Amino acid sequence: MRHQILVDMDGVLADVYTHFINLEYKDSGKTFTQEDLRGRLEDFVFPSFQKLVNSVGFFRTVPLLPDSVEGLKYLNDKYEVLIVSSATEFPNSLTDKRYWLAEHFSFISWKQMIFCGSKCNIKGDVMIDDHPKNLSLFDGKRILFSQPHNVYVHDETYQRISGWKDIMNLL
Amino acid sequence: MRHQILVDMDGVLADVYTHFINLEYKDSGKTFTQEDLRGRLEDFVFPSFQKLVNSVGFFRTVPLLPDSVEGLKYLNDKYEVLIVSSATEFPNSLTDKRYWLAEHFSFISWKQMIFCGSKCNIKGDVMIDDHPKNLSLFDGKRILFSQPHNVYVHDETYQRISGWKDIMNLL
Repeated sequence: MRHQILVDMDGVLADVYTHFINLEYKDSGKTFTQEDLRGRLEDFVFPSFQKLVNSVGFFRTVPLLPDSVEGLKYLNDKYEVLIVSSATEFPNSLTDKRYWLAEHFSFISWKQMIFCGSKCNIKGDVMIDDHPKNLSLFDGKRILFSQPHNVYVHDETYQRISGWKDIMNLL
Repeated sequence: MRHQILVDMDGVLADVYTHFINLEYKDSGKTFTQEDLRGRLEDFVFPSFQKLVNSVGFFRTVPLLPDSVEGLKYLNDKYEVLIVSSATEFPNSLTDKRYWLAEHFSFISWKQMIFCGSKCNIKGDVMIDDHPKNLSLFDGKRILFSQPHNVYVHDETYQRISGWKDIMNLL
């Protein structure tokens, strides 16, 4: 049987940082340096975080991370892929995320999507995620997708990758 | 550790039959006998099935099944409960289902909700579901919640129950 790969959305397929930065600038003119972002979770960095993630449309219009379409297509041809997104905290994100996946990743079926609160009850062989809170409870291979908030995370049980080109080389 | 119970929504918490029957009658005046419903899946019975399940609001306004609030509260106090709903096939159902759960089952946290396509990657000890397609792939205890579409299902690996009073007696 082919290995089951669990792929996160925000920070792995979706470029939520660029989306926050653009919308914060549009809202208030505020700008952010790399130093503002490093080692801090998004809800700590972005003043409009709660307003944005609870709005209708935020997750429907988030840009793609580089090479995510090509990379996910590569994984989907080779393995069993499940998209697993922490989403139930923000009710309006759910339908938005479903349509966003259909728009950008038409080769992913609705049968391959999971929107949850916690990822600890999802079975898989490999998890690709930018959040240690998800990876730390996973009993398969743990791949940490680099994002500004996790740059200071050092855990020997995670394999850090810097983007989709790394994933295509690794898996 | 407390046992993990996976609880379905449609046909277990939500009275989708009553909702379909009421809306079909409102739409076209059509009525249904018990015989029309027995042994047939809802998409086969109800002419407006696709229109309804794809609409905004259908899953937001579905009535509760009898004793479901009391029954789920009982389970939630005694076990680890996860609500697991097949929902990604119908994009507009997702946000509706999330708000519906919050309205009727305020004791269930967003961390306890999973909206998926297939349930075969969800871990648990007990599954309560009205669909053999979900129970048949589950490796824990399988509880079949009686609904008209499953009355002819006979499988010794399922424990059939007729409603939430049975669940409270059994678990």
